[in-house]
Amino acid sequence: MTLSDELRISLDGKWRHVREESRVRLAELDLAADHDLDLEAARERTFNQLKDLVPTGVPAAGYRKEHGGTGDPGMAVTGIEMLAQFDLSLMVKAGVQWGLFGGAVENLGTEQHHALIPKIINLDMVGCFAMTEIGHGSDVQSLETTATYDPATQEFVVHSPTKSSTKDYIGNAARHADTAAVFAQLVTRGQSHGVHCFLVQIRDENGDDMPGVTTADDHHKGGLRGVDNGRITFDEVRIPRENLLNRYGQVDEGGAYSSPIDDTGKRFFTMLGTLIRGRISVGGSALAASEVALSIAGRYALKRRQFGPEGSEVLLADYRMHQRRLLPLLARAYAYRFAQNQQTARMDRLQRSDEPDAQQQRELEGRAAGLKAVLTWHASRAVQESREMCGGAGYLAENRISTLRGDIDVFTTFEGDNHVMLQLVAKELLTGYAAEVGGLDPLGMVKFVAGTVTDVVRERTAVSQLIQRLIDARPGGGDDDHDLLDRGTQLSLFEDREQHVIETAARRLQRAAGADAEEAFRIFNGAQDHVIRCGRVHIDRIVLEAFTAGIARCEDPEAADLLREICTLYALSTIEEDLAWFMGHNRLSDARAKTVTTLVNDQLEKLRPHLLTIIEGLGVPEATLGAAFLLDEG
Amino acid sequence: MTLSDELRISLDGKWRHVREESRVRLAELDLAADHDLDLEAARERTFNQLKDLVPTGVPAAGYRKEHGGTGDPGMAVTGIEMLAQFDLSLMVKAGVQWGLFGGAVENLGTEQHHALIPKIINLDMVGCFAMTEIGHGSDVQSLETTATYDPATQEFVVHSPTKSSTKDYIGNAARHADTAAVFAQLVTRGQSHGVHCFLVQIRDENGDDMPGVTTADDHHKGGLRGVDNGRITFDEVRIPRENLLNRYGQVDEGGAYSSPIDDTGKRFFTMLGTLIRGRISVGGSALAASEVALSIAGRYALKRRQFGPEGSEVLLADYRMHQRRLLPLLARAYAYRFAQNQQTARMDRLQRSDEPDAQQQRELEGRAAGLKAVLTWHASRAVQESREMCGGAGYLAENRISTLRGDIDVFTTFEGDNHVMLQLVAKELLTGYAAEVGGLDPLGMVKFVAGTVTDVVRERTAVSQLIQRLIDARPGGGDDDHDLLDRGTQLSLFEDREQHVIETAARRLQRAAGADAEEAFRIFNGAQDHVIRCGRVHIDRIVLEAFTAGIARCEDPEAADLLREICTLYALSTIEEDLAWFMGHNRLSDARAKTVTTLVNDQLEKLRPHLLTIIEGLGVPEATLGAAFLLDEG
Repeated sequence: MTLSDELRISLDGKWRHVREESRVRLAELDLAADHDLDLEAARERTFNQLKDLVPTGVPAAGYRKEHGGTGDPGMAVTGIEMLAQFDLSLMVKAGVQWGLFGGAVENLGTEQHHALIPKIINLDMVGCFAMTEIGHGSDVQSLETTATYDPATQEFVVHSPTKSSTKDYIGNAARHADTAAVFAQLVTRGQSHGVHCFLVQIRDENGDDMPGVTTADDHHKGGLRGVDNGRITFDEVRIPRENLLNRYGQVDEGGAYSSPIDDTGKRFFTMLGTLIRGRISVGGSALAASEVALSIAGRYALKRRQFGPEGSEVLLADYRMHQRRLLPLLARAYAYRFAQNQQTARMDRLQRSDEPDAQQQRELEGRAAGLKAVLTWHASRAVQESREMCGGAGYLAENRISTLRGDIDVFTTFEGDNHVMLQLVAKELLTGYAAEVGGLDPLGMVKFVAGTVTDVVRERTAVSQLIQRLIDARPGGGDDDHDLLDRGTQLSLFEDREQHVIETAARRLQRAAGADAEEAFRIFNGAQDHVIRCGRVHIDRIVLEAFTAGIARCEDPEAADLLREICTLYALSTIEEDLAWFMGHNRLSDARAKTVTTLVNDQLEKLRPHLLTIIEGLGVPEATLGAAFLLDEG
Repeated sequence: MTLSDELRISLDGKWRHVREESRVRLAELDLAADHDLDLEAARERTFNQLKDLVPTGVPAAGYRKEHGGTGDPGMAVTGIEMLAQFDLSLMVKAGVQWGLFGGAVENLGTEQHHALIPKIINLDMVGCFAMTEIGHGSDVQSLETTATYDPATQEFVVHSPTKSSTKDYIGNAARHADTAAVFAQLVTRGQSHGVHCFLVQIRDENGDDMPGVTTADDHHKGGLRGVDNGRITFDEVRIPRENLLNRYGQVDEGGAYSSPIDDTGKRFFTMLGTLIRGRISVGGSALAASEVALSIAGRYALKRRQFGPEGSEVLLADYRMHQRRLLPLLARAYAYRFAQNQQTARMDRLQRSDEPDAQQQRELEGRAAGLKAVLTWHASRAVQESREMCGGAGYLAENRISTLRGDIDVFTTFEGDNHVMLQLVAKELLTGYAAEVGGLDPLGMVKFVAGTVTDVVRERTAVSQLIQRLIDARPGGGDDDHDLLDRGTQLSLFEDREQHVIETAARRLQRAAGADAEEAFRIFNGAQDHVIRCGRVHIDRIVLEAFTAGIARCEDPEAADLLREICTLYALSTIEEDLAWFMGHNRLSDARAKTVTTLVNDQLEKLRPHLLTIIEGLGVPEATLGAAFLLDEG
């Protein structure tokens, strides 16, 4: 077992067997992008690839055994992440069919709907997830599409009242979906009960639009050519009453509405919460794409020479500036992988439970939103930097990075704009996960800002004893430069920053208590950048803790040592990026702050000899990177 | 005349007439991207569009009257920038033909070659610029292609000795070029005289490769579908002696080499210096692309509503976070436009002169390299942020931003990697523009680091009295928050930072004096990030000064007031990004530093009411934005 094998085992985490099998099995399928195909052909190809995935067992893993699945949520997420290492179009297409569409049917539907799941698994029913509208993306609660109950026929009438209510950017909608999971305001007896989900057949057996349904094609995009995004409008489309996915809201034959959750907002966010796997998969897949790009750029840096003293040319990887571009991103990919795996394991535990803990579910939702934001931004940045680190060669499709760049771009928007995602995390932190605050309405948030948020920050899980022990054991402050290399010091800096940022944001928002709506909004808006920062520093802390916990679990001492050095680079470069804050808030003296850059550079030197090992540890086999220039012996 | 007209006049600068005419004339051509075309059809379309440009006079402007042009270098650069507002493929294709290829013929050739210029202007000769090789991009001095003189036949033999010497990423090489300007090591009588440029016919009248020439297709890329990038290899290709562009180096019939410049390195960099317009055009075009993307995202922010207090939805443009994303980038676009226009005017002045001042030429070269880096990074960032600010709609090709994103990506690599560009600027600053240091060889740089660099930083041009006056008039330091709003204070902070960063870098490099090559490289490499930072802070200072000078030239008082507010946002947000430095080096007390974020936010509020005016001031007419969602009344 080599050192890189040991690293890979650590990063592979609990669903290592899924990763190992996917590496082999997906490599056997022909998944490399073919840019010569026109748009229609590219979509057909991806759709056919989707069919090849059915026998891998990944699609079935996402569903409970009693519904015809194999009941392994962690495998479902891991399988999607592995697809992302091969082709992002296929990953998205699979995510739409089995994650979003199938997930809505399983989680929002009841027995009658669960009977559809075997058809969904084997693609006898192809679906799309018709949530976003032209006028409403991140703010799903304000969707305009209506589903009005007509007791005379016992049908819902699904309707798009305005142009801005057109469902848009919907994957699978332009070509392949026969059925849509449509999110619409449920209206019965003249009263609206908020957004619910309905199954609507949108195409007949010939692929033609059903009466009253009009689909349109979003056509070319910045990437993801294999995904047929499209638009759907409904003109008084009638569907049977039973097509309401009725786990959280039911309308009886006579039109009486009932729900296990009284509050409309709370009900809606409970529904959304059950769909959490989408967010987790998007973040994890983006991370996987970053692993591919960094593997390509990292291997190129170990091959390409440029300039150098007296005729001898120097490897790119030996230049300080190049190390600065590459290694902190690699360290970050490691850090996020540990955090992502931890999150997947928690999700898996909760989703296997028949009585999931409500508080843990809320925490997971907050964390999933925040990690989605941070991981997708990381991926955009890492793929971009990888492209630039490969120069002109990085721009050629044959070297793959430019395709990744186009495909990954929209992940920052999937599941909601990243700033909105961070604001969602912040809301949970600032209101102490108050059950009353479902939505993202700023006023709701302002109203419930907790008096003190200390407990939220100090919230501790099983990992906590380890973290607390490290924090307690840190060297006693002082101006000794080297304590910045101490994990306890780093953990304490991250935790302390989070607590301060959240507490000061809370104080600003508390000023809005009692203000009228306009003034309260003004106060909230004036602090919005501060609020969003709460989410960001919270995730930074969670990630460092997850990395620390991951190292503790690593059984190979040599691998654990190397992981420790990588973790130190992650911690120091994260501190360096926010150095002004640590200085301005007297967490680091000017003298100590000045050493941070030196310490980062020292860490680059320490890690440089292990660069190839670190790349190999990411677990993207060289043969599956699909970059022509790595094959050349030029 | 509206306020936005006045802003536009200021930003349009000296070649306003070219911009105004281009806005009308280019809008009449059908330049919107057509994503349904396959690669070959897209290339043909762009090539045909190129022919439509001949009558605009822009191609002829780039050449001296005595060579058949109209002698208006500023117009040539401005015309290319305006193309970039419409289509980046066309801009690149035009830049390759008339800028790089034609520029090489004019600037490196002599009378016999200048006779070709009319054919180049009207596309009777289509060229490519065969400089970059697979193994050597940014380090052009180390190109491997050879051109060996054979006195027996009075020919040069052009040859690609290795796979890594293949010319690659060459625009126009895959299809349309009949002639290549080939950069190769000139060898005669067994001795190499460094890189020179040779005209080599690569295709015959039928478009087939000439004997010994093998072209290949780079095929699909991350963008720029209209540009046929390709590879060229030479297998002992014989060309007449006269095909050497012999202004800076000549081989007589017998094979004796002569040159007006003795030193090989200095000769090479003099040759490169004459090609400076490429760098200026790349930076300016990237800036133009950012103006388009920000105009689209800015107008969308004034149209799209989301969330908000009690049912009323709020415009994106009214959210603090959205303002933070959008307005500093707009301010930056303004700042860079003034700097770019200033640079174009200086280039124009120098290139119209028969005896250009050598020192001014060197300064212009440094500045062009640095601005190219900073402007292209800005463009990548602005286009990316614009895409994200438009959410899913931003990802659809019909809204244009995603196409801009793919096209603009490689501009950070054009003309050399941006970090190398900044290192080049730093080299000039650190060595006091020492004529001896031509190349980017770190050791050369280390050897010539000036004893003191103060004078370089204090180097002042015509603009200087104004700047000095503002600096002298700044409020007397102290802890008064508001002096951060004073332009003199800002200018002084920028200048002071530059001087300090350069002086400390110089001190680090001076330690290498007398060291052996390996140790000297180690010292250089350990400081490389610091060295590159010299280039960056230098450009920041130059940009702020150019903005200040631009405001002084603005004749409309109301427009000048608004420009002042925009400039303040540029200055403050630039300080905010580097706040840790200003704090750590006691340029800003902790208390004063903490006010910076508040001051930036105040500035956002001040500018919000002028958002549409600011967007309109960029001078990209709404009708030419080509974004479908701005046309909808949804």
